[in-house]
Amino acid sequence: MFNFDFQAATNVLFGKGQIEKLPSSLAPFGKNVLLTYGGGSIKRNGLYDDIISKLGSDFNVFELPGIEPNPRIETVIKGVELCREHKIDVILAVGGGSTIDCSKAISAGTFYDGNPWDFTSDASLVGETLPIVSILTIAATGSEMNGGSVITNLETKEKLSFGARSLAPKVSILDPSYTFSVPKYQTMAGSADILSHLFENYFDHTKDAMVQDSIAEGLMRTVHHYTPLALENPENYEARANLMWASSLALNGLTGSGKAQVWSCHAMEHELSAYYDITHGIGLAIITPRWMKHCLNETTAAKFAEYGHRVFDIDYMDDTMAMAEQAIESTYQAFKNWGVPMTLGEVGIDESLLSEMASQTIKHKSLDNAFVPIKEADVLAIFKASLVEMY
Amino acid sequence: MFNFDFQAATNVLFGKGQIEKLPSSLAPFGKNVLLTYGGGSIKRNGLYDDIISKLGSDFNVFELPGIEPNPRIETVIKGVELCREHKIDVILAVGGGSTIDCSKAISAGTFYDGNPWDFTSDASLVGETLPIVSILTIAATGSEMNGGSVITNLETKEKLSFGARSLAPKVSILDPSYTFSVPKYQTMAGSADILSHLFENYFDHTKDAMVQDSIAEGLMRTVHHYTPLALENPENYEARANLMWASSLALNGLTGSGKAQVWSCHAMEHELSAYYDITHGIGLAIITPRWMKHCLNETTAAKFAEYGHRVFDIDYMDDTMAMAEQAIESTYQAFKNWGVPMTLGEVGIDESLLSEMASQTIKHKSLDNAFVPIKEADVLAIFKASLVEMY
Repeated sequence: MFNFDFQAATNVLFGKGQIEKLPSSLAPFGKNVLLTYGGGSIKRNGLYDDIISKLGSDFNVFELPGIEPNPRIETVIKGVELCREHKIDVILAVGGGSTIDCSKAISAGTFYDGNPWDFTSDASLVGETLPIVSILTIAATGSEMNGGSVITNLETKEKLSFGARSLAPKVSILDPSYTFSVPKYQTMAGSADILSHLFENYFDHTKDAMVQDSIAEGLMRTVHHYTPLALENPENYEARANLMWASSLALNGLTGSGKAQVWSCHAMEHELSAYYDITHGIGLAIITPRWMKHCLNETTAAKFAEYGHRVFDIDYMDDTMAMAEQAIESTYQAFKNWGVPMTLGEVGIDESLLSEMASQTIKHKSLDNAFVPIKEADVLAIFKASLVEMY
Repeated sequence: MFNFDFQAATNVLFGKGQIEKLPSSLAPFGKNVLLTYGGGSIKRNGLYDDIISKLGSDFNVFELPGIEPNPRIETVIKGVELCREHKIDVILAVGGGSTIDCSKAISAGTFYDGNPWDFTSDASLVGETLPIVSILTIAATGSEMNGGSVITNLETKEKLSFGARSLAPKVSILDPSYTFSVPKYQTMAGSADILSHLFENYFDHTKDAMVQDSIAEGLMRTVHHYTPLALENPENYEARANLMWASSLALNGLTGSGKAQVWSCHAMEHELSAYYDITHGIGLAIITPRWMKHCLNETTAAKFAEYGHRVFDIDYMDDTMAMAEQAIESTYQAFKNWGVPMTLGEVGIDESLLSEMASQTIKHKSLDNAFVPIKEADVLAIFKASLVEMY
C-alpha cells in the first residue's frame, strides 16, 4: 500500500426528504446563489420548483441552465461571468456529474484570470474557490463527493480532467427518489461508470491493498445486484439508494487511496466522448471487457480470478486462467443483459478515427504504469476489438 | 436503508514518515499544545522524542501522561484543568482509542462548567471544543476518525460513551510502523475490537443496506487475513497497514450510516470492563460468539450464513442453519487461533457479579431494537455461556 492523504469532507445528507435542509446548507455561505443545471429534467419532475420555493426570498438566485452531458469550456466561461457579475457566494449544482463538474470549473475559474481550460494541464492554478452545494439526480460519476472535474473542449476535441480538494462540494443532498425518473439508458450508463471507477483502481499492480480492494469488490457486487432491479422498476427506492451511495463511495478516495491510480479505460473513453460526444458510461462499458481481455496474462490472471470469485461468485478452480476468462465474460454479459449496446458501431463510431483517438489517448496520458502497460498500439487494438461482439 | 448524514472530515495522513507533517498539521490551531498519552510506550519506542524534536521551539508543549486503558473521568478532569491553566489551543493525542477518547472528553470539558461525566447522559451538552490532532499507535477503536468517546467512572462502575461530530480529530497521522511494537495480546484485542464494530452494525434488522454490509464483509475478511500475519511477524508493514486502515474505516460511519446501530456486544462488554477493568477487545471476543449463537434462529440464520460465505468462504448449501452454525464456529475458532482467552474465567471474571452486570447492561442501554431483542435475562445467559468453552 502506498502512502496517502484521505479526507471526505463533503457533508452528505442522504435519503428521502433531505431537501428540507437545503436552506440551512446554503445559508452559511451567503445569499447570492448560482443555480446550475442541465437539460431541464428538473423542471419536468418538479425538483426545480421545489428548490425555488424552498429558497424563497431568503436567497438571490441566478441561473445557469443547459449544462451539456459532456460539459463544455464555453459553458464554464459563461458561468464564471455570471459569478463575477452577480457576486455569487455559493454555487448550487443540481444534476449529475456533468453539472457538478462544470460547477467546479466555474468555482475555480471565478478567481482565475486566465482561461479555466488551463486547469486541465496544471491543477495547481486552482486558487480560491466558491463553495458548492450539490443536489444529485443520477448515480454515476461520484462528483458529489470529490474534488475532480472533467471538462470538454469540442474545438480541440479534448476531454480532460483536473481536481483540487477544495472543489469537493461542501454539502451534497442525495435523495434516491430524485433518480426514479432517470431513463433506462442513463441508469445503465451510470452503473457502468460506477463499476469503471472501481475497476480502474482495483485492477492495478499495488500489492497488499486489501482494505481498498475488498471494499471495491463489495461495491461492485452491490452495483450488479441492484442495477437490474432499478432497470426493471425505476421506482425501487432501495435499488436507487444503494446505487446512489455506491456511486459516491466508488470515487471519494476510499478505493483509490494507497493505490497507483493509473486509469486506462477512462483515458481511452475520454477520446471517444471528445470525438463523438457519446455517453461516458456507455463508452466505458464497451471498452472495459476488451481492455480486461487485453490485460489478461499469466501474471494478471489471479487478480481477475479473485475478482470473479468475489463479485460473480465463481468457484475457485485449479485453472486460474479459466476462472479469469469466466470473470471477464461475466462482466461483458452483465452489461449486455442490462441492455447496453456493446459495440462501437451501435453508438455511431466506425473505424475511421480510431488511430487518431489512440494516438491522442497516449498523448493526453501515459499509461506506462497501468495494471498492464498500455501503449498506442494497445489502445488501437482495444478500440478495434470494440467494433465486434466479444462472445 | 434509513436516512443518514455522513461526513469523514478528519484529514488522514497515512503511511511511513507522515509525522513530517505534524508541525504543519498543528500550526493552524495555535502554539499551545497539550500532549496526551498513555503508559509510556511512546517513550520506549522513540516516538515521544521524535515528536518533541519535531515540535522544537515553535510550540509550547504541556503534557498529560498516564491515560489509562479504560480512561477515567478523574484523568479527563485533570486534562481540563491543564487546558484552562495553559490556554491550550490544540490537543495532540498520541496513542490508541483510550488516549484519543480521553482527549475528546477533555476537549469538550474545557468549555463546560459542570463535570464532563454529564456528557455521557446528554451529549447535547457538548458545546465549543478544542481541536484534536492524533497520532495513532494501535489499530483498534477507530477513535482517530470519528467523534465518539468512551469514559470510565470506576467509582460508580460505569463505562459510558458520548459523541459529537466536532470532536473528530482534525488530522490523524496513521503510520503503520508505529504499531510494530504493539504486543501480541493488544494486537489481537485490537483486531477483535475492529471486528466487533463491524459486527455491531452488520448484524441488525435493516433491510437493503448492501453498500454498508458488503463494505463490512470486505473489512472483516481483511482483518481475518492480516491479523495472523501481524501476530506472526509484528513488523509486517502490509499487515499492520491493512489493520490500521481497517480500524479507522470500521467506525467512521461507513458501515453504520443508514442502519439501526443498536450495539449489543459493546453494551455488555462495557459492564465487564467497568467492573473488572479488562481489555475491551478481549471482552468483546469472548462475548461475541455466544451472542451470535444466542441470536441464531430461523429468521436470522440467512444473515449468519451470508456472513459465513462472504467472510470465511463457506460454500452455500441448502441447510442455511448449518451454514450459520459453521459461520459462528469459524468466528470463535479464529479468535482462539489468534490466542485470545475465550472464557471469562481466563480474564479473572467468575459468576459472582454476572447478574448485577446483566442488570446494569439494560439499565444503561435498551437493546429492544437490536438484531434480536436482548433483555436482562438474555444478557445473563450470554454471560453464563461465556464461562465455558463453546466447542
